[in-house]
Amino acid sequence: MSSKTPLTYKNAGVDIDAQNEALAQARESILQSSTPGVLGNVGAFGGLFDPAKAGCRDAVLVSSADGVGTKLDVAKRAGIYGTVGRDLVQHCINDILVQGARPLFFMDYVGTGRLEPHVVSALIRGCAEACKDNGLALLGGETAEMPGLYRDGDFDLVGFIVGAVERDRILDGSRVEAGQHLIGLRSAGLHTNGYSLARRIFFDELKLDLNDRPEPLGGASVCEALLAPHLSYLELLWPLLEQDQLAAMAHITGGGLLDNLPRVLGQHDAHIACDSWTPGGLFQMLVQGGNMERDEAFRAFNMGIGMVLIVPDEHRAAVCAHLESKGEDVYALGRVEAGKGQVHLH
Amino acid sequence: MSSKTPLTYKNAGVDIDAQNEALAQARESILQSSTPGVLGNVGAFGGLFDPAKAGCRDAVLVSSADGVGTKLDVAKRAGIYGTVGRDLVQHCINDILVQGARPLFFMDYVGTGRLEPHVVSALIRGCAEACKDNGLALLGGETAEMPGLYRDGDFDLVGFIVGAVERDRILDGSRVEAGQHLIGLRSAGLHTNGYSLARRIFFDELKLDLNDRPEPLGGASVCEALLAPHLSYLELLWPLLEQDQLAAMAHITGGGLLDNLPRVLGQHDAHIACDSWTPGGLFQMLVQGGNMERDEAFRAFNMGIGMVLIVPDEHRAAVCAHLESKGEDVYALGRVEAGKGQVHLH
Repeated sequence: MSSKTPLTYKNAGVDIDAQNEALAQARESILQSSTPGVLGNVGAFGGLFDPAKAGCRDAVLVSSADGVGTKLDVAKRAGIYGTVGRDLVQHCINDILVQGARPLFFMDYVGTGRLEPHVVSALIRGCAEACKDNGLALLGGETAEMPGLYRDGDFDLVGFIVGAVERDRILDGSRVEAGQHLIGLRSAGLHTNGYSLARRIFFDELKLDLNDRPEPLGGASVCEALLAPHLSYLELLWPLLEQDQLAAMAHITGGGLLDNLPRVLGQHDAHIACDSWTPGGLFQMLVQGGNMERDEAFRAFNMGIGMVLIVPDEHRAAVCAHLESKGEDVYALGRVEAGKGQVHLH
Repeated sequence: MSSKTPLTYKNAGVDIDAQNEALAQARESILQSSTPGVLGNVGAFGGLFDPAKAGCRDAVLVSSADGVGTKLDVAKRAGIYGTVGRDLVQHCINDILVQGARPLFFMDYVGTGRLEPHVVSALIRGCAEACKDNGLALLGGETAEMPGLYRDGDFDLVGFIVGAVERDRILDGSRVEAGQHLIGLRSAGLHTNGYSLARRIFFDELKLDLNDRPEPLGGASVCEALLAPHLSYLELLWPLLEQDQLAAMAHITGGGLLDNLPRVLGQHDAHIACDSWTPGGLFQMLVQGGNMERDEAFRAFNMGIGMVLIVPDEHRAAVCAHLESKGEDVYALGRVEAGKGQVHLH
């Protein structure tokens, strides 16, 4: 009825030393992401954050959870673990930014089959560095080694963000009106969406290798194009939010322009001129390689637009001037009109 | 160079209809977990929560991220998906409760290989029902279908909690003093910790089946014993926190009594009399079946103690009276003495 040699947690596949090693390797980056709101209490059960010390009192909290999706598979094939943490953090930042919130703190979760310290620490450091660059704290997280549940070498990376917005500054679509302008901002590529389909097209249909540099990618390798980090629009757009120049925003993630814009349209339609921008070579390869129908492509991918601003006519010139002063391409996608919450591609 | 039949997201393995179906099945439970702090905004990018409407202004936020670990594997083998959500929520609640915080809201993440709506909706409903029972809101979440990253049938479940505590009520160990009492509260079993080792002992060493009812389990099946939900100590302990009768608390999770108590001991040691309680038959089977050394067992498992209260002498009688009035077994584990942050088992 009993095991001959004493069993330990480690020989059941859970190596607490490896966990500690991963955290030690990420520790300096985590500490560098600290902000005035963080109440230092290393080793505590939960992370403590004082919104008042971060300059916000009596604000509404905005929170979002997300993963990186199968962009992780590309990172794993390439052996590049340092960028997907940034993808995750910046995706989460954009998700609350579109409601008018600035980020306060972030928590990460890494689930693995067998914990390799250099992989896990690179994932966490990527999160921490993106937090630092965007002015939020990596407040805590969890690393779980789950033999049997994930295969060796497999992992998932999940993030949670909390931000704050003043009550009268919440952007929820209620300020959207007919006649307002749709302004698109470029994405850096797929961001964190559409990778299951993109992998199938690039690797199975087009039979490309990560190191190939097909002509439409303009010199970039498949790996570089697919792992380009999700852009954060926080620094670019925060001045416009402070000056209250936007009626609404939509972060173009899963579901693309067709499913994300309706989240803020209410009883309006968005009319988009597809010739107002040119999706990059990456998207052209995906559409052609997958022989994709237009609407399917516009749901599966962001098609080169990572963020859409809905701008009242009186602020349009100032908004465009700000964006252009930052070196940003400004795509005049079209207009909002009376309707029923649909997106029309013209 | 191109696919003959048009490719879609669905034939790349991502089924948005299945995702919507899962959410539809969980929707009623999610809505029922709503609290006055939730600003209704279904379909928004992030969840909005107003702490003032939840009765807390100018409080410190306490946040924690966690998973269920390989208890998920037991749930999967048993085909029982309704309880692990509760495990996750109640684990997270305890993690912030020990710092004096009451929970405000929770976010869930489900990662899967192939999204089966009845599985995912059961996972989310389990979270939502536990949120409702504990008075916090399931504010949002993410469901990700990641073909190739998880195998069909595999999934992970991750949670993130935010709570609040008044600045002068934060429990961080600073009130711990020599002479204070260590009071243990029973766990319902392994809670969410030690499952990789427990599965190895039960299934590989003892060759037991989920439906077996070995005598030490007192009539329960292996499945019932292993899936017993993680207890929430919120309702039981909140009155003691409101009356400020506790010096500190430790949630006994990964690392057991030996690694969790030191988080609040500071420059004190905890002296625990191992004869002050009897670990249930489940723990006796694990120790014997794994031929485990005592300290290893006390690090891998909670050994029947899910929470430890550190109680000043002047409040001991009142604390014990409260716990006993709620029908709780009160284990007088021992005392805190001057030391250096260690746990001594006697």
